[in-house]
Amino acid sequence: MTKISVIGGGSSYTPELVDGLIQHHSEIGLSELALVDVEAGREKVQIIADLTRRMLKRNGLEQVKVSVHFSLDDAIRDSSFVLTQLRVGQLSARAADERLGLKFNMLGQETTGVGGFAKALRTIPVMLEVAKTVERLAPDAWIINFTNPAGIVTEAVSRHSKANVIGLCNVPVNMHHMIANMLQAPYEDVELRFAGLNHMVWVHQVALKGKDVTESVIERLCNGETLTMNNIKDTPWPPAFLRALGAIPCPYHRYFYQTDAMLAEEFEAAAERGTRAEQVMKVEAELFTLYASPDLAEKPTQLNFRGGAFYSEVAVELIRAIHTNSGKVLVVNTTNKGAIAGLPYDAVVETNCVINAQGAHPLSFGPLPEAMNGLTQQVKDFERLTIEAAVKGCRKSAILALVTNPLIGNANIAEEMLEEILTQNRRYLPQFN
Amino acid sequence: MTKISVIGGGSSYTPELVDGLIQHHSEIGLSELALVDVEAGREKVQIIADLTRRMLKRNGLEQVKVSVHFSLDDAIRDSSFVLTQLRVGQLSARAADERLGLKFNMLGQETTGVGGFAKALRTIPVMLEVAKTVERLAPDAWIINFTNPAGIVTEAVSRHSKANVIGLCNVPVNMHHMIANMLQAPYEDVELRFAGLNHMVWVHQVALKGKDVTESVIERLCNGETLTMNNIKDTPWPPAFLRALGAIPCPYHRYFYQTDAMLAEEFEAAAERGTRAEQVMKVEAELFTLYASPDLAEKPTQLNFRGGAFYSEVAVELIRAIHTNSGKVLVVNTTNKGAIAGLPYDAVVETNCVINAQGAHPLSFGPLPEAMNGLTQQVKDFERLTIEAAVKGCRKSAILALVTNPLIGNANIAEEMLEEILTQNRRYLPQFN
Amino acid sequence: MTKISVIGGGSSYTPELVDGLIQHHSEIGLSELALVDVEAGREKVQIIADLTRRMLKRNGLEQVKVSVHFSLDDAIRDSSFVLTQLRVGQLSARAADERLGLKFNMLGQETTGVGGFAKALRTIPVMLEVAKTVERLAPDAWIINFTNPAGIVTEAVSRHSKANVIGLCNVPVNMHHMIANMLQAPYEDVELRFAGLNHMVWVHQVALKGKDVTESVIERLCNGETLTMNNIKDTPWPPAFLRALGAIPCPYHRYFYQTDAMLAEEFEAAAERGTRAEQVMKVEAELFTLYASPDLAEKPTQLNFRGGAFYSEVAVELIRAIHTNSGKVLVVNTTNKGAIAGLPYDAVVETNCVINAQGAHPLSFGPLPEAMNGLTQQVKDFERLTIEAAVKGCRKSAILALVTNPLIGNANIAEEMLEEILTQNRRYLPQFN
Amino acid sequence: MTKISVIGGGSSYTPELVDGLIQHHSEIGLSELALVDVEAGREKVQIIADLTRRMLKRNGLEQVKVSVHFSLDDAIRDSSFVLTQLRVGQLSARAADERLGLKFNMLGQETTGVGGFAKALRTIPVMLEVAKTVERLAPDAWIINFTNPAGIVTEAVSRHSKANVIGLCNVPVNMHHMIANMLQAPYEDVELRFAGLNHMVWVHQVALKGKDVTESVIERLCNGETLTMNNIKDTPWPPAFLRALGAIPCPYHRYFYQTDAMLAEEFEAAAERGTRAEQVMKVEAELFTLYASPDLAEKPTQLNFRGGAFYSEVAVELIRAIHTNSGKVLVVNTTNKGAIAGLPYDAVVETNCVINAQGAHPLSFGPLPEAMNGLTQQVKDFERLTIEAAVKGCRKSAILALVTNPLIGNANIAEEMLEEILTQNRRYLPQFN
Repeated sequence: MTKISVIGGGSSYTPELVDGLIQHHSEIGLSELALVDVEAGREKVQIIADLTRRMLKRNGLEQVKVSVHFSLDDAIRDSSFVLTQLRVGQLSARAADERLGLKFNMLGQETTGVGGFAKALRTIPVMLEVAKTVERLAPDAWIINFTNPAGIVTEAVSRHSKANVIGLCNVPVNMHHMIANMLQAPYEDVELRFAGLNHMVWVHQVALKGKDVTESVIERLCNGETLTMNNIKDTPWPPAFLRALGAIPCPYHRYFYQTDAMLAEEFEAAAERGTRAEQVMKVEAELFTLYASPDLAEKPTQLNFRGGAFYSEVAVELIRAIHTNSGKVLVVNTTNKGAIAGLPYDAVVETNCVINAQGAHPLSFGPLPEAMNGLTQQVKDFERLTIEAAVKGCRKSAILALVTNPLIGNANIAEEMLEEILTQNRRYLPQFN
Repeated sequence: MTKISVIGGGSSYTPELVDGLIQHHSEIGLSELALVDVEAGREKVQIIADLTRRMLKRNGLEQVKVSVHFSLDDAIRDSSFVLTQLRVGQLSARAADERLGLKFNMLGQETTGVGGFAKALRTIPVMLEVAKTVERLAPDAWIINFTNPAGIVTEAVSRHSKANVIGLCNVPVNMHHMIANMLQAPYEDVELRFAGLNHMVWVHQVALKGKDVTESVIERLCNGETLTMNNIKDTPWPPAFLRALGAIPCPYHRYFYQTDAMLAEEFEAAAERGTRAEQVMKVEAELFTLYASPDLAEKPTQLNFRGGAFYSEVAVELIRAIHTNSGKVLVVNTTNKGAIAGLPYDAVVETNCVINAQGAHPLSFGPLPEAMNGLTQQVKDFERLTIEAAVKGCRKSAILALVTNPLIGNANIAEEMLEEILTQNRRYLPQFN
Repeated sequence: MTKISVIGGGSSYTPELVDGLIQHHSEIGLSELALVDVEAGREKVQIIADLTRRMLKRNGLEQVKVSVHFSLDDAIRDSSFVLTQLRVGQLSARAADERLGLKFNMLGQETTGVGGFAKALRTIPVMLEVAKTVERLAPDAWIINFTNPAGIVTEAVSRHSKANVIGLCNVPVNMHHMIANMLQAPYEDVELRFAGLNHMVWVHQVALKGKDVTESVIERLCNGETLTMNNIKDTPWPPAFLRALGAIPCPYHRYFYQTDAMLAEEFEAAAERGTRAEQVMKVEAELFTLYASPDLAEKPTQLNFRGGAFYSEVAVELIRAIHTNSGKVLVVNTTNKGAIAGLPYDAVVETNCVINAQGAHPLSFGPLPEAMNGLTQQVKDFERLTIEAAVKGCRKSAILALVTNPLIGNANIAEEMLEEILTQNRRYLPQFN
Repeated sequence: MTKISVIGGGSSYTPELVDGLIQHHSEIGLSELALVDVEAGREKVQIIADLTRRMLKRNGLEQVKVSVHFSLDDAIRDSSFVLTQLRVGQLSARAADERLGLKFNMLGQETTGVGGFAKALRTIPVMLEVAKTVERLAPDAWIINFTNPAGIVTEAVSRHSKANVIGLCNVPVNMHHMIANMLQAPYEDVELRFAGLNHMVWVHQVALKGKDVTESVIERLCNGETLTMNNIKDTPWPPAFLRALGAIPCPYHRYFYQTDAMLAEEFEAAAERGTRAEQVMKVEAELFTLYASPDLAEKPTQLNFRGGAFYSEVAVELIRAIHTNSGKVLVVNTTNKGAIAGLPYDAVVETNCVINAQGAHPLSFGPLPEAMNGLTQQVKDFERLTIEAAVKGCRKSAILALVTNPLIGNANIAEEMLEEILTQNRRYLPQFN
């Protein structure tokens, strides 16, 4: 009897998740889905709940209960899994973040730079409230966090609550699928060794049926094959850089290693099509129109363009591994515990872990190569200062976080930028008042 | 096409191993067994080879080639796995070690104390010769080392050669079986979390179907249930100690935590039945008489009393996991890589590892509790000084090793003891001349 | 205006200290000496106070106030330095510890083994009370701790209070004098590099006028010159051991490296002359008879035989270095802060430190050699478990401490030994009731 | 009898150094100054040698020998100190570096960014040749390195030779003087606690007569007082940033924290007055005209504008401390040895060290705060990749170094930039051919 609550249940991603849960319902023992959202999202979450019921019915799973909640307690009570995919301030807050970055002639992006910082400040207090509720009402439950910036949010929960938490991102699974395609090999025959941070993770080794083929994958990338995701512009990596690195950066690394080109692209897109959030708002509106149709009883194909490919796949795989105590190796965000040498013991990292009923157990990786260590340290320090700022409402930590972020790093504008963020997000940041 | 060479193929354990390989021959793709031994063991290895052929035949596996060698090159060439279970100086050298310990009023034991030290000095040069041969003639092969002291020998190979090596011991698997029996649960439903050194390993957690039941296992042990092995006297652990520790020591910990009692027992046994080696010699003689019988075509049940229970089980499981790239979690001896915080990065430790075609990948464990850390550090320092002494023939390191060993630890007798060891083992220790 | 309070002011050592303070009174700006003791020691502390006044007068320092206290607050208020040389349970508790060790056929010694453990349990609660009083009433004061076991007690204070603390021992200064004598060189021309724990410290290098002469000092020790202290039997170190070690152990290392010989010596002494505490009681009685004489106005020469040679020298040197912000390098017990790699960051270690107005700043040392690391780790783990036991009154930590101590290390007797200690010291260990 | 050799003796700084040596000649026991330069600098080094002789004569020190050399062996043989202040490619190579940076719209600066990278590539091979000569001909000598980038160059020597080396920079001493001035206190009454890397060092604490006054110094800086050096534009630090940091950045931090403003300033200066090297060339020409005058027998005041204020002060102080085995605490560049937690053990850092005849012994500092750690790690990783590139002539490491440098950090231009550097410096970089 597995109850799963979904915080941010009114998200347009939910049908993807429901689709995955339906496919594996028996292994999971699914008995209830509790969708939680804010009052402002009442209409959306009702649409999602109705669609979910139709999807369950089509699959003969009417016995699975679907409940809708506008507060946490009833939803979370007795859950086995609490999925968090919330978005404080909705897409309009994200659009404001993006525009703020551009105003300062900097990247405006959801999870890195100033956008990631602002989103973390808004999100962490809400996530900690979820975590405290889990501690009280479902102490054995696992929080599966998708909420971005997923690394920061997961670390905030793991360090500031006693609730069990694992963070998930679809970047590793996307890279896995893309590399398998590139090698024309089945997904299962390809193994990737990840170590880094969320949205700053490298593939250090590609193995095909147990043989190291990293070099040949790098050569393919040097020869024009690409590896990127829907939502990130597909600029090829310079071959000399890639060969020197000897590893495969994730798509988000473009923001750090190709900053100028990415910024130019953002400016162009913002002028022509709107920022990413502004584009997504349109996609979302169309999706909810579809979802509301009483004839729809499955995940619509249009959802694939939303950007969250394979989210459901990794979420359901993780839930299964925990629920069945399988010991499968998955790539998740969890406490370092010394796995990546040189990063703090309690830092959340993204790496290969054995998953069982007791959570995620990272495999020892050792130190990151010098060419990766410095950037990773800097981003992790930014993350920790951001958590400090968000939890305590501390302006000093906030300024240091902005200056430490390698995409900002400018002491001269840090204070002005912070004040704009605080003003713009006033209603979501009571800790700073 | 998997060729397996067995260094020390004339060991009485070999039929146990052959029995396991037969059961899983198809998964492993077994094509050849190359048995290697020294000239002095010619008769024994021939008996073993003949028995092996009869066992294969009875199972319809005549196509598996069995070869016998008295030098390394032909045996090792093109092997996929090189199993090392050699005993330099045979059981008589071990018996001399045991008597030497007792003479100094100290434990005389094969793998700890002065006995482990002397055996390491004899064994490491031979093992490094095996490793160099593997580097030359089978560079992709995996050395699976059972040779005691397994932790020291495996570390010597991993730090002083480029050959792939994993060390194996039957202590973890025995503890696993015994605890499963105690819980009246199937072996597969019980998971143990090991971290420590070979013959100095603790079970930090027992999980039954994913639930932590460590405390209840400790209570059973406090209430008289036991957990020991054939070859170690079954003294119960003091309940107050066990409850304070909150973990389960391995049987060999008795030598360290109950030294006086174990020493008294050794003196008594030596007087009445002979030392362990002297007892084993008798068992071995009987076993070879059995093995030589042309009617015997299976592993005789008498072998179970030899002390190596489940050796074949773990060996075959490890070979399968590497050969099939399975990713299964097994407990082996491999390079720490930061898994146990506070121990050297390149120290060999015994802990839970993901096993695949690329070897053993330890799960991060974090620091050992204070009550375990000091002893572990001391034994590891002893091990490293011993390796230094064995590799370089360095008397200074040898003396420091003896003084560092917690079962010796006496600066006043270290030099005399060393000279006796060197004299007694002169023919096996050319590095000291 | 420097007020110095002395907790345990009735100690027979105090005149030594007063003698040193008088010699350097102007640099220190000494204005008041506040002697504190327990009611049971009223007579002794009055004798000491009177002698102190006579000593001050003879040196024309009548203006220095001498006060006597039987509670902490008034004594500590506004002190610049709080010297702690207390002995909970007086010498009779120490004698009981020594007899307890011998009863278990183990070393009964004040600072190591079971004696050090019992003394730590008695002392830590009292010292923490002192520290809390310092926090309240003299928050800028420095606690200079001589109370044994000095390393454990200093660590307890530094980890469990906010008071400033530095621990002092006369072993390093004694070794310095003895080695200078051996080299027939002035004290100032000889520099020693210490790193280790209190009563487990090594001299890693001897420099004479800036040149490394370690090897020649070791050769002298191998050739019969000795280096020991009044209170520790002068057994020579085996030359082969000393040359292999390449460093100079402190006299207390004999308890660990020559345990059997030291134990035999203790048994003999206990039978013939009484244990160390029993001998000291006689010396003390004689000393106080001397002290009480109205004609005595200086430190009597008989005090030199008490065992605390140079205590006053190091104490006054430390007080001067702090008071004058001198930056002098002294050997003290302070927080590791990474100076000795591999020991906890907050562990108290004994090593060379720059001393100034802000305390002790250890020089980076790096890792201890393998031959020293294990033993040091084990003793440090014992110390930390002991602190845990003493602070929380935790029997589990106490049992683990006893088993972790390399001079005890016996799980079979740990509980019985603990219960005897608790019974014997019942009135001093309220935390265990 | 102290012979000092000066590699790059024809530098315009040399008279400053000579002036300092004259002042302290007796403590140092100065007997010979051996000036070494390249053939292309023959005229300059002769001018310097003649001026040096006149300066010595005026001070009655004709007995100090002054020799001129155009190869290393004779100069270095039997030296006690080898001062390295060489400039491979002279100022024209530096000017080219600066112009290269600006061409890529990046900072062109001697020690940071692309300029520091190019200078390191040119300098390291020459410095290693010096070090190898010292190993052969003056194995007990100390190399005192001023050559920039001093941190990188010193680490290259310390990791790739056995020669003794300490790196020196005038930034700490300048900050010390400026802060003392700010506090209107004598230099000796002010103590600064430095920890970081060369040209990336922070003052973590200011003490005035032993009292912590860091906060008040920060407030002065927030209120308009400045702390910068001749050669770095005096932009004030934003108060909110400084208060959040709680420490005092060095002037070179402006390049990292105020990159845009510094770059704008560089463009402006380059257009109006020439780059820094181009300006310095004019100053140097004037200085050498002065130096050549037979009437000049002292350091001319014009030298003060050259930018190397206090270089001679720290150099002579360091030489004295080593020569007299003084144990004084100075701020130098030396091997970390764990002093700054989280940086490699063998990394060269800039921090407070006890200096004696055996070199520099850093005081343990602990971890850098999060707001400093990431940037420091990144710069250190850049430095180590640069050393790898310079020592091995490895293009891969060179590309990774450029991408890792936070002032470059652009994978898209790294290869092109490297090829320009290699072309421009072809004659100085034989290791890349």
